[in-house]
Amino acid sequence: METVPLILKKAHGERLLDTEIEWMVMGYLRDRIPDYQMSAFLMAVCQRGMDTAECTALTRCMRDSGECLDLSGIGHPVCDKHSTGGVGDKTTLVVLPVVAACGGYGAKMSGRGLGYTGGTVDKLHAIPGFSTELSLGHFIRQVQTEGLAVVEQMKNLVPADKKIYALRDVTGTVESIPLIASSILSKKLASGADVIVIDVKYGRGAFMKERNSATALGNMLRQVGSALGKEVHPVLSSMDVPLGCAVGNAIEVREAIDVLRGGGTEDVRSLSVTLAAKMLALSGMGSEDECRAAAVQSLKDGSAYDKFCRMVWAQGGDVSAVEDVERLPAAKYRQILYAERTGEIRKMQTDKIGEAAVTLGAGRRRKDAEISYGAGLMVFRKTGEIVKAGDALAEFYSDDKDCITAASRLYRDAVSVE
Amino acid sequence: METVPLILKKAHGERLLDTEIEWMVMGYLRDRIPDYQMSAFLMAVCQRGMDTAECTALTRCMRDSGECLDLSGIGHPVCDKHSTGGVGDKTTLVVLPVVAACGGYGAKMSGRGLGYTGGTVDKLHAIPGFSTELSLGHFIRQVQTEGLAVVEQMKNLVPADKKIYALRDVTGTVESIPLIASSILSKKLASGADVIVIDVKYGRGAFMKERNSATALGNMLRQVGSALGKEVHPVLSSMDVPLGCAVGNAIEVREAIDVLRGGGTEDVRSLSVTLAAKMLALSGMGSEDECRAAAVQSLKDGSAYDKFCRMVWAQGGDVSAVEDVERLPAAKYRQILYAERTGEIRKMQTDKIGEAAVTLGAGRRRKDAEISYGAGLMVFRKTGEIVKAGDALAEFYSDDKDCITAASRLYRDAVSVE
Repeated sequence: METVPLILKKAHGERLLDTEIEWMVMGYLRDRIPDYQMSAFLMAVCQRGMDTAECTALTRCMRDSGECLDLSGIGHPVCDKHSTGGVGDKTTLVVLPVVAACGGYGAKMSGRGLGYTGGTVDKLHAIPGFSTELSLGHFIRQVQTEGLAVVEQMKNLVPADKKIYALRDVTGTVESIPLIASSILSKKLASGADVIVIDVKYGRGAFMKERNSATALGNMLRQVGSALGKEVHPVLSSMDVPLGCAVGNAIEVREAIDVLRGGGTEDVRSLSVTLAAKMLALSGMGSEDECRAAAVQSLKDGSAYDKFCRMVWAQGGDVSAVEDVERLPAAKYRQILYAERTGEIRKMQTDKIGEAAVTLGAGRRRKDAEISYGAGLMVFRKTGEIVKAGDALAEFYSDDKDCITAASRLYRDAVSVE
Repeated sequence: METVPLILKKAHGERLLDTEIEWMVMGYLRDRIPDYQMSAFLMAVCQRGMDTAECTALTRCMRDSGECLDLSGIGHPVCDKHSTGGVGDKTTLVVLPVVAACGGYGAKMSGRGLGYTGGTVDKLHAIPGFSTELSLGHFIRQVQTEGLAVVEQMKNLVPADKKIYALRDVTGTVESIPLIASSILSKKLASGADVIVIDVKYGRGAFMKERNSATALGNMLRQVGSALGKEVHPVLSSMDVPLGCAVGNAIEVREAIDVLRGGGTEDVRSLSVTLAAKMLALSGMGSEDECRAAAVQSLKDGSAYDKFCRMVWAQGGDVSAVEDVERLPAAKYRQILYAERTGEIRKMQTDKIGEAAVTLGAGRRRKDAEISYGAGLMVFRKTGEIVKAGDALAEFYSDDKDCITAASRLYRDAVSVE
């Protein structure tokens, strides 16, 4: 086989055979195919697409490029949850405790955040002492005994996806449904869960701006999952406005704790219940309606909150900072942004609100950047609300006053009051 | 400016500004943009195209990336001729002498052949002693005094085109009208001619398989040339069968000499006259009909042949090998291929016939490969002709008997007798 004819085949819009896809992926992983050929190939895929069979071959090949975890030792169906990335998305912190409280098993491998979408691992690191670098043995034992665990993605999983993703990131080849689907699924399949629920976000703050792209991605995820023998269930959710109020790390943990204690914001609670109910139902814990009722109950009766505390404890975190959230990290400076005029909030450019949070120090622009766990912002008013001049629109938290000034400017640009 | 947003802009099918195209080209030339970003960008251009304004900006930028020759010292309008590459295309060897014999000035910079299309420089090197590495001063003086010269492309011209072309070659990004047009034109514009006639080939043995692609390329060449202040005239010609009979180097020189002496093959003569007449007319030497008559006359009366001999002499070649073509290099072995059955030649895969010539040693698969000047093949029967079993179809010349066997196999595959 030769590389250039395969690039051309895809560039001409033809279907690639399984062996051809494997040639490209493994050739690239083993440095037989250089970056510049792979990036041309990836751009051809972005432009011409891949059908389900091609995406299945790509996903299988990336999954098998490294170690695949065997979680069968847990002895129960294990659920995993993934989000395609949003602004203010702290649902994992609620969903896993709910699943565990209702008798399910939730095992999640998660990444650090990059760009304007946060990462669950960063949020949990806001809890003093919380460790996400568990051994495989610890991970499995904790899921068995506590019903839940969140770990950082293990280093020897899906090396092909890691190498390809790093290239896509710098070559404008991220935007492709088959490439996104295979990247998500290869990781999830290698992580060993039995049931995989994927929250596919769409709208201004999501990677997929249009609902129909999200639908297409959801379908691809389900079909490829099924072709590779796993129950993969997409749940579509809008990201036209931030989810909940908090966008950051410690402040998102606080908001999740509020929900786990039976309060908190309605949109976070509602989406968390939907995702948890889906995972429980697919684990054989009853009908989706029954599972939904159980999930709601676990938030009311504190059992989900207890599970969260158990996880924090099991992973070395300071439970007293959960009990008394004032002990979570806080930024040095805080400042409220007020509406300059009266009117209705017509739209929010949610991706820019995410950028404002990154500017405050809550996220990373580069992989190796440091973040500030106390930094972030609270969104007080959202699209559709009427505000009067002088009403508080948002509050910013940062260790750097200049960053607050810059973030305020970004935020004003992002929110149209008319 | 940043590179990834520009890649994405083109990937989304948007128009790029002149400054954006310049950022990409000069950034790449100066190693600020790595190969892997440039190849993704080039694939996006292949898929999404460029309009005339974008192609003009690209061409200008590549032209200005290196030295531009000033041929105004010649004191007359200087013509250049380019072919997009064919099999058996020896027209340059006829056209320039005809132009010079009719009072015009032809100055051509040419490349070595790569793949199945030959290069004029290689053909001329089949004449013992012939040098194509002239100084600029020698080149200009020779055009002034003799009316014609062929030199190898000078090294300090269009470095951006050279670097981009080398990348396109290995990333499946050759097939793009704006990329082809800008590559041809940047070289031609930097070479300093006033009148540029481009023989745009289409069909089985050409890079453009379809006539409408060739038309589109021709239009782009004319429009971009005009936007950059040069008369660029495309002439479309079919390459469904090889041009003339000879495919190689020394044997193509022989065929060109036959035409220059008033004989030779009709298709070579006819296309050469058309191209020369166009160049003469554009140089202000009369109407196209008048120029055509003069061109035909120059082949009849031997004046074009004389000009060819003058050029060979001026560039250090052995004129006696022109006078007596038996003194041109010949291959060690020769072998005739006979028809296995009676029937009509329905089609010839002309690109494969070119590959057969490369296999015999007449061309290069890699840039630094050696070629054999005596190697090649003669095509005796073409599409549409009736052959009887046992008729000679072609003759092969090579220094290696095994290569003749391999080329015979390729040739039989390429020619369908039904």
